[in-house]
Amino acid sequence: MRNYLKALSLLTTVVLTIGGVAHAAEIPGSSLAALTDVQKYERAIHIMAMLLVGFGFLMVFVKKYGRSTLTATYLLVSVSLPLYFLKESYFGIENSAGIIDTLILAEFAAASLLICAGAVLGRLKMHQYLLLGLMFVPFYALNEWIVLNCGLGLITGKVVDTGGSIVIHAFGAIFGLGVAASMTTHQEYETAIECDETSDRYSLLGSMVLWIFWPSFCSALVAPADVPKTAINVILALCGSTLATYFASVKLRGKISAADIANATLAGGVAIGSTCALAVPGTSFAIGILAGLVSTFGFAVIQEKLTDLTKKVDTCGVFYLHGLPGLLGGIAALVVVSGIDFAAQLTAILVTIIIAASAGLISGKVIAVLGSRSVPYVDNEEFEGESTD
Amino acid sequence: MRNYLKALSLLTTVVLTIGGVAHAAEIPGSSLAALTDVQKYERAIHIMAMLLVGFGFLMVFVKKYGRSTLTATYLLVSVSLPLYFLKESYFGIENSAGIIDTLILAEFAAASLLICAGAVLGRLKMHQYLLLGLMFVPFYALNEWIVLNCGLGLITGKVVDTGGSIVIHAFGAIFGLGVAASMTTHQEYETAIECDETSDRYSLLGSMVLWIFWPSFCSALVAPADVPKTAINVILALCGSTLATYFASVKLRGKISAADIANATLAGGVAIGSTCALAVPGTSFAIGILAGLVSTFGFAVIQEKLTDLTKKVDTCGVFYLHGLPGLLGGIAALVVVSGIDFAAQLTAILVTIIIAASAGLISGKVIAVLGSRSVPYVDNEEFEGESTD
Amino acid sequence: MRNYLKALSLLTTVVLTIGGVAHAAEIPGSSLAALTDVQKYERAIHIMAMLLVGFGFLMVFVKKYGRSTLTATYLLVSVSLPLYFLKESYFGIENSAGIIDTLILAEFAAASLLICAGAVLGRLKMHQYLLLGLMFVPFYALNEWIVLNCGLGLITGKVVDTGGSIVIHAFGAIFGLGVAASMTTHQEYETAIECDETSDRYSLLGSMVLWIFWPSFCSALVAPADVPKTAINVILALCGSTLATYFASVKLRGKISAADIANATLAGGVAIGSTCALAVPGTSFAIGILAGLVSTFGFAVIQEKLTDLTKKVDTCGVFYLHGLPGLLGGIAALVVVSGIDFAAQLTAILVTIIIAASAGLISGKVIAVLGSRSVPYVDNEEFEGESTD
Repeated sequence: MRNYLKALSLLTTVVLTIGGVAHAAEIPGSSLAALTDVQKYERAIHIMAMLLVGFGFLMVFVKKYGRSTLTATYLLVSVSLPLYFLKESYFGIENSAGIIDTLILAEFAAASLLICAGAVLGRLKMHQYLLLGLMFVPFYALNEWIVLNCGLGLITGKVVDTGGSIVIHAFGAIFGLGVAASMTTHQEYETAIECDETSDRYSLLGSMVLWIFWPSFCSALVAPADVPKTAINVILALCGSTLATYFASVKLRGKISAADIANATLAGGVAIGSTCALAVPGTSFAIGILAGLVSTFGFAVIQEKLTDLTKKVDTCGVFYLHGLPGLLGGIAALVVVSGIDFAAQLTAILVTIIIAASAGLISGKVIAVLGSRSVPYVDNEEFEGESTD
Repeated sequence: MRNYLKALSLLTTVVLTIGGVAHAAEIPGSSLAALTDVQKYERAIHIMAMLLVGFGFLMVFVKKYGRSTLTATYLLVSVSLPLYFLKESYFGIENSAGIIDTLILAEFAAASLLICAGAVLGRLKMHQYLLLGLMFVPFYALNEWIVLNCGLGLITGKVVDTGGSIVIHAFGAIFGLGVAASMTTHQEYETAIECDETSDRYSLLGSMVLWIFWPSFCSALVAPADVPKTAINVILALCGSTLATYFASVKLRGKISAADIANATLAGGVAIGSTCALAVPGTSFAIGILAGLVSTFGFAVIQEKLTDLTKKVDTCGVFYLHGLPGLLGGIAALVVVSGIDFAAQLTAILVTIIIAASAGLISGKVIAVLGSRSVPYVDNEEFEGESTD
Repeated sequence: MRNYLKALSLLTTVVLTIGGVAHAAEIPGSSLAALTDVQKYERAIHIMAMLLVGFGFLMVFVKKYGRSTLTATYLLVSVSLPLYFLKESYFGIENSAGIIDTLILAEFAAASLLICAGAVLGRLKMHQYLLLGLMFVPFYALNEWIVLNCGLGLITGKVVDTGGSIVIHAFGAIFGLGVAASMTTHQEYETAIECDETSDRYSLLGSMVLWIFWPSFCSALVAPADVPKTAINVILALCGSTLATYFASVKLRGKISAADIANATLAGGVAIGSTCALAVPGTSFAIGILAGLVSTFGFAVIQEKLTDLTKKVDTCGVFYLHGLPGLLGGIAALVVVSGIDFAAQLTAILVTIIIAASAGLISGKVIAVLGSRSVPYVDNEEFEGESTD
């Protein structure tokens, strides 16, 4: 009987302890699982801000092309999200992830597509951007499946790429270079894309929106308990690349370039993508500094030489913001993450480069069938009213 | 005794299972109920971004009127939120909803007011916007009470309008048309409001902010478990209207209109409002496409004809962005939602039209007492310094 | 046996009641504690939006200095966040708060630094902003430690300053005035900083972003159950200051000043900082109105007289937006909060003023060693390309 009383008192304790919780559980549709999904939803909205205002305004610097850039951003997002959902509904049956995970994966695909489009910005008409989206998403999904879900059995180990340095940033940038390589005409190469001198502040707005929400991009799919640590790693990497960009820009150019500040500041976010959930704060800061240096060096030194050498134009310099820092991030994981599967990680990088480059070259040829131009487009070819940007 | 041991082991299992939860419950003020409210708060902040940056910048296109538009946005929000709270504290006693629900409902009222103000933008002085707010909120609250809370016993069934296609969008647009109708002078009709040619990018910024946070607007008050589904429906509807707007704009005008892209892209969000928590993804996408077509057709074809016919001016074309797609959304529910109460839904639409139109006409007459103008206002009539927009 | 059955049925009830919760607890890393931290993370991201887009764009009004302002904002944030983290890792051992709390406290330091920098905007080169950051953070942390954590034993009672009217706003503003006082040369005083006439809309964008996310700033560290109440108090205070600013601006100047609207509208947020978690809605609205009046009076009347009197320039008028309303907020707590410790609160205000002023004066002298200028800087001294802002 005394034992029985003990059991009862223990039970009472349990009941009292969970009192608040049990009460709360009566709210219809409220549970830890549901609230966890809503928190993912919050991060999904942050990513949406990056896709539209972030990427869109960062790219508003081509002369007389502001309306086109923002409209293209709208169209690329609107074609890629439903397309990825469609793919999921056909092939995603075994995927037990909730629909909010699918939304975030679809946004990742849209981000990679926007990076890709940055390489040929100003060279396509609106319907060609749509075609680019239609061709990009299947290849992106193929690479994602091979690298992260062991598709085709090419990679059997675990690839470390939480925030997508490899599968989002490097893939998008290299795909874009492929498209540019097969589309750039000789005349195009000679007709430089002019910058709009009044748009620095717009570009910096886009840059800041990307910086602000980058932690949500990288922590979008991590478990709640790991979100704070991941976010702080990303923020420290961004602080590192911002400081490094300022010093490198002054050092390499003599004066600061506003384009460096708008772009290379973000290289830390790109490079920390692979290891954001696993690195320690100090390492994250160091990766950010390194990425800022590499990216600024790319914009200030490599870009001109490579453009001259290859006679190919990468309008937004996506190779220097997303390509190099993305590869850097994927390789940094080999050093930073203890017990990493070297073979899997390196194969992932190699497969990504091969699929992105070849798919980009093919897509460029297909898109060129719908027209190719020697001089950059301006707004008033496709838009009503005079171009004032 | 064996039974007793079994009971004890079961109890131990329970204690261990809820271990993490019980520990967490010790955090002061942390409970599922509290966290659910904080998540609503997050969505309330998203809506605030829509009210100020979204609506404010979308409307920054009237020539030499940028400062006035943004200041009017500030004032309309600042007068309507406290007013709605005041109403709640007098009439909301029986309302068991928490204060965070009241905040969201107040924001809905502010959104509807901003839609209404869009119809007469550029025709009012600042104190007239304030008066408009003071007159609008009581009528809005009356209609909301009748349609959603069975006020006066006019509607006894359940009206399907989660995201406010009817009570927010259609109500605001029709109220605004009423104000415009009773205020527009003959001279005003003949003095077209000129667009500021440099403000496309500002309008697109406002448009994108509305697009980004629209899922939070529609899912603001739904249960946590339904948020992901609702959000994805809204996003698919917006993708649909964005793609449809591009095609319709090119088809109907020959070239793309940046104003169509800034406005009609959002029609999917307006139209999915009623059924966002109940539709399936495919249907949401279709409703979005239809809304984009209807809205672009409104801007490109109906607007000019109706303005000529009625000699009345709707500055921002709110009838084509919020009026028509709002009514479309309310009616779409009749087809999409199984077991819907036809009588209740149709009565709700009818009541909304009648209250909004008559209250708008009355308010216009009252506001006109404080002054009415034949030519549009410009910034420097009310603001220091030269107008540079 | 009957008792035993009762116990078993009670146990079953418990198991069923916590069914959903127990199921949810199986999600790895999901617990009330983890979700509570993720919600703090969400508010931390909101604050980041305030730091970069909010403060950055609010200050984009100095002629030909847009790129510099936004780059300085980037650098100030990127130097202060890691520095505060570094401090925590050395001195924060006894601090049991999670890393997400540290991130929010670091953001508070960055906000205070940006306020401070506003006082000398346009007078420093980029490396001087960095030096300002390096000098500011230690003094800020010292004051925070004395006022909020009983450092040195100067204050033993509880200081009411949830949203930082005293330790963030007043501290930053007074520190900035100190720097300006020891750096302003006679020629500088005579060379007024010219406003860029096209930047009203940018300033209003920054202002609106600050307005939107201010509730998250003030409720960043409060318990989940208190977030809704705190947020609504902040929103009502902002509504109050926005309405008051409009009326005061018209009354005091004859016409509305766009700078008043961009700045003084926010004074309600500054002043409600101390009491945001404790005041009732009506009081919050009243504090907001009072703050709007005081701030607008500062900008419209005091600023010119004080500048003439002291021959010192406060570029952004931070004393009128953050200084006066911050002190007002700290003092308002004496009236609003029942049972407040008068001695502690008043000592906190006094200590903050003394540390901020003396540290500011010292820092100004040190920064002046690296160069001091008689005329304001413009973008193209440090940036590539022609200044177009």
